[in-house]
Amino acid sequence: MGGAAGDALLGRFVELAGAAAARVVVIATASGSPETAEKAYLERFHALGAGEVRALRLTSRAAANAPEAAAVLRKATGIFFTGGDQERITGVLGGTATDVLLHELVDSGRVVLGGTSAGAAMMSGTMITGGDRTGVAADSVRIGPGLEFLPCVLIDQHFAERGRLNRLLSAVAQYPHELGVGIDEDTAILTGNDGFEVLGSGAVTVVDAGAAADIRVPPAGPIALAGARIHVLPAGCTFHLTGRRPVTGPPEPERERAA
Amino acid sequence: MGGAAGDALLGRFVELAGAAAARVVVIATASGSPETAEKAYLERFHALGAGEVRALRLTSRAAANAPEAAAVLRKATGIFFTGGDQERITGVLGGTATDVLLHELVDSGRVVLGGTSAGAAMMSGTMITGGDRTGVAADSVRIGPGLEFLPCVLIDQHFAERGRLNRLLSAVAQYPHELGVGIDEDTAILTGNDGFEVLGSGAVTVVDAGAAADIRVPPAGPIALAGARIHVLPAGCTFHLTGRRPVTGPPEPERERAA
Repeated sequence: MGGAAGDALLGRFVELAGAAAARVVVIATASGSPETAEKAYLERFHALGAGEVRALRLTSRAAANAPEAAAVLRKATGIFFTGGDQERITGVLGGTATDVLLHELVDSGRVVLGGTSAGAAMMSGTMITGGDRTGVAADSVRIGPGLEFLPCVLIDQHFAERGRLNRLLSAVAQYPHELGVGIDEDTAILTGNDGFEVLGSGAVTVVDAGAAADIRVPPAGPIALAGARIHVLPAGCTFHLTGRRPVTGPPEPERERAA
Repeated sequence: MGGAAGDALLGRFVELAGAAAARVVVIATASGSPETAEKAYLERFHALGAGEVRALRLTSRAAANAPEAAAVLRKATGIFFTGGDQERITGVLGGTATDVLLHELVDSGRVVLGGTSAGAAMMSGTMITGGDRTGVAADSVRIGPGLEFLPCVLIDQHFAERGRLNRLLSAVAQYPHELGVGIDEDTAILTGNDGFEVLGSGAVTVVDAGAAADIRVPPAGPIALAGARIHVLPAGCTFHLTGRRPVTGPPEPERERAA
């Protein structure tokens, strides 16, 4: 979720986690004030019908390596990461027993992993950790490794709202094997076997620099990027990672096409 | 020029207009305070070595239809439009004797026509007159006909600085025959027979929605746009309108490629 997620998106997460049978764990590691963030999401998930909701406070690597954390996570059907600073998530959880367990639980299909804003960014193979939006250049973006729940994908969030296309272009021009995925606020990608479906009120902008015929990245100054592909995908669209191919939804009814 | 043009770009304009032999006419119709804009550009063009520089104050359609305006323009080797509001230019000059004469002078190659910000936008076949940058949607952009010095091109300016890609995407998704050209500040396109060269310190972002396999524009809500092409072109790159093809400059020297 690209930040500012509404009830429709959070409700879908609860539903996927089992609705009344869901056991949701909220992790606010990214937040500077985890207590506030936990409280807000516990209330919202309760209101949206989740059976059980609890917070798991992980603000140190010691906590993330403790058996208590694993015990809580093993009982979960849904795990949700709040927004904040994605580098707090990688710094506190990266390489810990919690990190390993989360991958195990997600890979086995035993939990639904959700996150918004920083909680979405950290799922990337490579995440954007900062950068301005003036110009496409090597120094217009800072990147770092994410927790790699989505390898070969580079997620940016609050995408349209903060005018972040240039920083996403700056990142994928340097690493064209990473697919750039910019998620608007109140918008999400729901990942499946080979790609994702778009949900929510905004759009997901996909930048495929793998298609570029020529890319030149000088150490300073503007990048040249020729022939990249861009897709703007609102709810209902899907994207296949194999072949990097968008599908914009079912064809419109004949009567509309004839109008 | 995409706004905030530095001396290198304005100097190139003076040079193309004939340097010491140049007779430059400044038209500040777009500006809300034309006197200030005229004064600033007269000083800068003088300092950059233009032989003669004068302003032509066109703030009414009567003035734009008067023979005095034509007399001034016929003596010019360079005509420069300042920034401001592009709709003032089309409102005051559109369809007047000045408009007709400007096309005649440009088509015959007798003058170099330059402009910055609004003065560049108005040269488009279709110009963007407003819009926000949140989301790619039909109502995210307002457009209107430009004075069509560059048919089939839709210019946006202050491009990276104001995060305008979404409004450019919103425009070309609706009119994919128009090539979207976003010019950064202190950056310009120099048009030739079949396309343009990029000059200046920033980049020109070209969006080619003609390449899109599928475009869906609902009356409200986000647009779906699949398979558009995007090129980010800094100084030294050229773009051919025929075939909508970018050239990113001469190949790098062998030793660099081997490094």
